[in-house]
Amino acid sequence: MTQQRLDKLTASLTGGQLDAVILNPGPTLKYLSGIDFHLMERPVVLFVTPNQEPVLVLPELELLKVDLFPFKIKHFAYGENPDSWNDVFKKAIQSLGLDGKKIGVEPRQLRLMEFSYVKASAPEADYPDASDVLAQLRLRKDEAEVKKMRKAVTIAQSALEAVIPQIKIGMTEKEIAGELVIQLLKHGSESEMPFAPIVSAGPNSANPHASPSDRKIQSGDLLVVDWGATYEGYISDLTRTFAVGEVDDEAKKICELVMQANEAGRKAAKPNVTCASVDKAARDVIEKGGYGKYFTHRTGHGIGMEGHEAPYMRGDNMMLLDVGMTFTVEPGIYLAGRNGVRIEDNMVVTENGAESLSDMPRELRVVG
Amino acid sequence: MTQQRLDKLTASLTGGQLDAVILNPGPTLKYLSGIDFHLMERPVVLFVTPNQEPVLVLPELELLKVDLFPFKIKHFAYGENPDSWNDVFKKAIQSLGLDGKKIGVEPRQLRLMEFSYVKASAPEADYPDASDVLAQLRLRKDEAEVKKMRKAVTIAQSALEAVIPQIKIGMTEKEIAGELVIQLLKHGSESEMPFAPIVSAGPNSANPHASPSDRKIQSGDLLVVDWGATYEGYISDLTRTFAVGEVDDEAKKICELVMQANEAGRKAAKPNVTCASVDKAARDVIEKGGYGKYFTHRTGHGIGMEGHEAPYMRGDNMMLLDVGMTFTVEPGIYLAGRNGVRIEDNMVVTENGAESLSDMPRELRVVG
Repeated sequence: MTQQRLDKLTASLTGGQLDAVILNPGPTLKYLSGIDFHLMERPVVLFVTPNQEPVLVLPELELLKVDLFPFKIKHFAYGENPDSWNDVFKKAIQSLGLDGKKIGVEPRQLRLMEFSYVKASAPEADYPDASDVLAQLRLRKDEAEVKKMRKAVTIAQSALEAVIPQIKIGMTEKEIAGELVIQLLKHGSESEMPFAPIVSAGPNSANPHASPSDRKIQSGDLLVVDWGATYEGYISDLTRTFAVGEVDDEAKKICELVMQANEAGRKAAKPNVTCASVDKAARDVIEKGGYGKYFTHRTGHGIGMEGHEAPYMRGDNMMLLDVGMTFTVEPGIYLAGRNGVRIEDNMVVTENGAESLSDMPRELRVVG
Repeated sequence: MTQQRLDKLTASLTGGQLDAVILNPGPTLKYLSGIDFHLMERPVVLFVTPNQEPVLVLPELELLKVDLFPFKIKHFAYGENPDSWNDVFKKAIQSLGLDGKKIGVEPRQLRLMEFSYVKASAPEADYPDASDVLAQLRLRKDEAEVKKMRKAVTIAQSALEAVIPQIKIGMTEKEIAGELVIQLLKHGSESEMPFAPIVSAGPNSANPHASPSDRKIQSGDLLVVDWGATYEGYISDLTRTFAVGEVDDEAKKICELVMQANEAGRKAAKPNVTCASVDKAARDVIEKGGYGKYFTHRTGHGIGMEGHEAPYMRGDNMMLLDVGMTFTVEPGIYLAGRNGVRIEDNMVVTENGAESLSDMPRELRVVG
């Protein structure tokens, strides 16, 4: 399978727009090779060109991974002294004749460190942004990939269901998050979680990117749980909002509105509609309800091997949805200093519409 | 405390070598601000200059974090459409007058993405490597930091002790790793682990950077467990090696040799000796034992908020140890296709020597 993936990538390079792409440890390298490399102070770079074997630069102590590659590569390994690394990169780059060529990069992933080693040996090369070419590789998930994502959703949902009965008024956000992580692992998530769960209540829930705090949850809080699992390298990313004890009418109202917006966003998704129209469908509901200015972020983002990847459900994104694309629908309303709500599902575009991989109840449930 | 940290950083910029440093989400930003920012597709950059308030560029949906800063900052926030982000960076950079100046970067941390936004608005600036200046900030740990690291060690050790009685022949590496992560959380580790534990046995243990596999452990294997915990942002990073059932004489011999090398490395550490001499002390033991070529990596690396940071215990590193520096001593022997061993402790340099924060038995214990 990964040979096919490499072939697809090299085919996309033959148009002459790019003479090579360089990958450092991250999801694209993992997708191509199936191998885990650490992102650390020792640079690892794979050079992919249209007509030559891929070339890998890596530390000697990772050499055993060379044999795990599912396609033929050449490799150049360096020792522990960083003073020697530039020479090793130079040999690798010279073997491919890349100076003066167009070497595509992935700016979200590549660090200045790896880039500097490459640039030192190919100072006359251009380094265009190859994000779109590389995103295309992983944009449409095949059946096996969707199956893994479905499993990642199932694990996440059962883990949270196991935590819900344990949630009591007076527990801290951190305590709930800790128990959730334990349940995620017990239910089969890999230990490299897609992200640390967000558990935020009351005023903290009005911060979409809150970290769990030592604040104790109390009656009247909305409790936002944004969590996910990893299964065979694929992730889930869900959000549900709960009422702690008795919450006020406005809290109920914004939860109802976000639930309707979530449904509208999910229903709008199908092949050949724009990402913008999914965003609009969800946003319209919240705007009509009078809370438009409190829905401060896009409606969703792609998911797969990464927590956030293409396609992005933004009002300015005219990309058309296509079968196999997977993304979140996650409208929210955030009332600073008071309460927040978000409801997030994971979608896959099908022939006729889009299916939600997640089916945990979205209605406001009371905990505590 | 973080005001002092900022003052220390700005003081180190007044020599004129650098007119600013830029930080993206990662340990240095966390050290300075105490705030967690996600490393994601939305860039977050803090600009620190000697004589002006720091300037933060961030997404609007992270605005609530601005008030959490422990010192005064100016901020420039952008919306969800990436087309608008360059303008926001431009305003931030113009407000500081940074074009044409020397803007220090952290190449191990900064991605091409953040760098490109900054460079687009300061094309005439120089971007020297500020890693050394920034490493100096965090190189010597104060008492409060060492206390957190000590706690991270205690958590890690008790977690592994809870797993050891559960290890049976026939369990997979992945199963052991999963149980270890659960115990780490139960014993108080934060859910953002420093790294996914390495659990590798038999031939897999000969790969220093193995990922846990579905291979079942069997009698005769050496079992390497390399794991750590996070406590209040500080980490531990330990390794112990176990015998699964009855192992052969060479396995016992290399374990004994590595235990002696570990002790020699730990005893060599004290103020005003070089990192190289710590490496040499450990390496000499293994070379004299006839296994020098199988000890394929440096003897250790600094730890603190990062898994790997300065100072590095390498044969070419003439940096002098000083009170408060914290690092690993982790010699190993790797016999490809057969077995590997590594024993790793976490050290802090004291007035008269160095203390091991970890005290779990290093002798070869039998499991299964």
